[in-house]
Amino acid sequence: MAVVTNLEPKRRTSTPLDDLTALVAEDLSAVNEIIIQNMQSSVELIPQLAGYLIAAGGKRLRPVLTLAAANLCGYQGDKHRLLAAVVEFIHSATLLHDDVVDESDLRRGLASANAVFGNKASVLVGDFLFSRSFEMMVQVGSLDVLQILSRASAVIAEGEVLQLRTTNDTETTEEAYLEVIKGKTAELFAAACRVGAVVANRPEAEAQALYDYGMNLGIAFQLVDDVLDYSALQATLGKTVGDDFREGKLTLPVVLSISRGDATERAFWHRTMEELEQADGDLAHAQALMAKHDALTDTVARARHYGALARGNLAVFADGPIKTAMLEVIDFVIDRDF
Amino acid sequence: MAVVTNLEPKRRTSTPLDDLTALVAEDLSAVNEIIIQNMQSSVELIPQLAGYLIAAGGKRLRPVLTLAAANLCGYQGDKHRLLAAVVEFIHSATLLHDDVVDESDLRRGLASANAVFGNKASVLVGDFLFSRSFEMMVQVGSLDVLQILSRASAVIAEGEVLQLRTTNDTETTEEAYLEVIKGKTAELFAAACRVGAVVANRPEAEAQALYDYGMNLGIAFQLVDDVLDYSALQATLGKTVGDDFREGKLTLPVVLSISRGDATERAFWHRTMEELEQADGDLAHAQALMAKHDALTDTVARARHYGALARGNLAVFADGPIKTAMLEVIDFVIDRDF
Repeated sequence: MAVVTNLEPKRRTSTPLDDLTALVAEDLSAVNEIIIQNMQSSVELIPQLAGYLIAAGGKRLRPVLTLAAANLCGYQGDKHRLLAAVVEFIHSATLLHDDVVDESDLRRGLASANAVFGNKASVLVGDFLFSRSFEMMVQVGSLDVLQILSRASAVIAEGEVLQLRTTNDTETTEEAYLEVIKGKTAELFAAACRVGAVVANRPEAEAQALYDYGMNLGIAFQLVDDVLDYSALQATLGKTVGDDFREGKLTLPVVLSISRGDATERAFWHRTMEELEQADGDLAHAQALMAKHDALTDTVARARHYGALARGNLAVFADGPIKTAMLEVIDFVIDRDF
Repeated sequence: MAVVTNLEPKRRTSTPLDDLTALVAEDLSAVNEIIIQNMQSSVELIPQLAGYLIAAGGKRLRPVLTLAAANLCGYQGDKHRLLAAVVEFIHSATLLHDDVVDESDLRRGLASANAVFGNKASVLVGDFLFSRSFEMMVQVGSLDVLQILSRASAVIAEGEVLQLRTTNDTETTEEAYLEVIKGKTAELFAAACRVGAVVANRPEAEAQALYDYGMNLGIAFQLVDDVLDYSALQATLGKTVGDDFREGKLTLPVVLSISRGDATERAFWHRTMEELEQADGDLAHAQALMAKHDALTDTVARARHYGALARGNLAVFADGPIKTAMLEVIDFVIDRDF
């Protein structure tokens, strides 16, 4: 990975996300119970497949954000736990459908659910989780929450469809790419944070500040994800390095490389990303072009910009351990190597 | 189609469904407007694909049932129109995902959306329509309605997953088949009818009666659908005859034929449905076995049984043109040839 020495993995035994997770540990444990209860069904394949994906873990970043946001807003009830589970269900349904659409074989270092259970089951169990998430929202009993999360779901789907349109399109601009990731990734981060303020009945200014924090954090998260797809050690990332390249996804590292490249380079990108005619060595050449044009470092720089915005969004809240941990999560999202 | 002469198509210029549709014509026209408005998105592929499926029509049976149920309950507002559009959105999302799962090429006599736009787009636009349907439900502002329709969506997904498990399983019982169709088809009919009573603030007894009417009607509808898959003229049905056979779907005509067949016949069903080893003439042989064992006529007889139950469910309502048309729709569902 000589081309990305400036992004070399930082090995840590504990991350800033662990600090935030520790602060909401009791809630998160309850969320895990709620998740397991609600993925039950008399149709055995549903808990089998859902359990394979959800129980296998992942960072639980989005539900942790919901818990943290509610906590930051001084919420004293327990509805934020149900909401956090809802957010994880929506995320999981999206992952199941994403992996079908992307034809992915790996997820979090394991064979993806569609690779194990088949595409058909992944589509249908995704639909189940999605439907169940709305049943759970109804239990929360807030039309405001339902409005926020149903809108987020529609925006996510729009982002995914937009990504389908920009895939293999080497004319994709940085602006179009940003629209895609705001929809497919950042909107759920934003909604996950916003509902924490709404369930706590806080003023709109705080709800909006948390929405903006989530949106900016989510954008930074996806930018770094897209960098890692070209730079991470596979074992660390838990997915196949070069997936985006093989699928011809026009992520920002590629968009920047194309815009800064000469005619020969543009022909290379056209062949590999648009025609999907790829040979041995093409991924390495793509990585070399990214190094030449600082495409990965500049993508991380963009992530830092959104991280700085997210930092500013929390200014309206009083200082305290939760706020400190939520600020540290911004750095974690940007500096992580997985 | 000599094997199904007892089911020969009845040609009509007007059906009992047309009568019901005419009674709610003004509402239905408003529903079509709501549908078109709500499938809009700045991501052009969404209205393109959704429009291809939804605007192309179909019988609009489910939204017509919502309008009729609200009407039967004396509802005077206009929220039933939004609800009817919601029901059609849920149905459309399900169709999009079904066609991906079933790898279908035809839908309502046209190339299916996945055949035209690809599986990926169908999965994601299905997700969009589904999410948008919940946004629209929130506009209705009733947690009861949200509870009914989110539960229905989860039950539909369970039915679809259960169908995945019974496909290619020649041990499938009539009871298991019934569980599948209650979930995948009848639950939405039931919920579509029930919300008509709920939006009209009618007593639970009426809401339950309409739910039961929809459930029984939906079961009858699916039973006849499964008969038509072996008996209809392709041009009439608007889909490929023998689809279920080619996919190895254990529908009731097959379940009955297997249970009534000898060892040679069971070997035939095992080879064609479980191993999916099918040769020219196998579909015709399957149809001959169904004729020998009265499997199609007995499936229609089951449909008539559920039709009779549906008829009884409407007894609690006062007579009138809407009730008469809703009773006639039962006969339409059973006697239709498409």
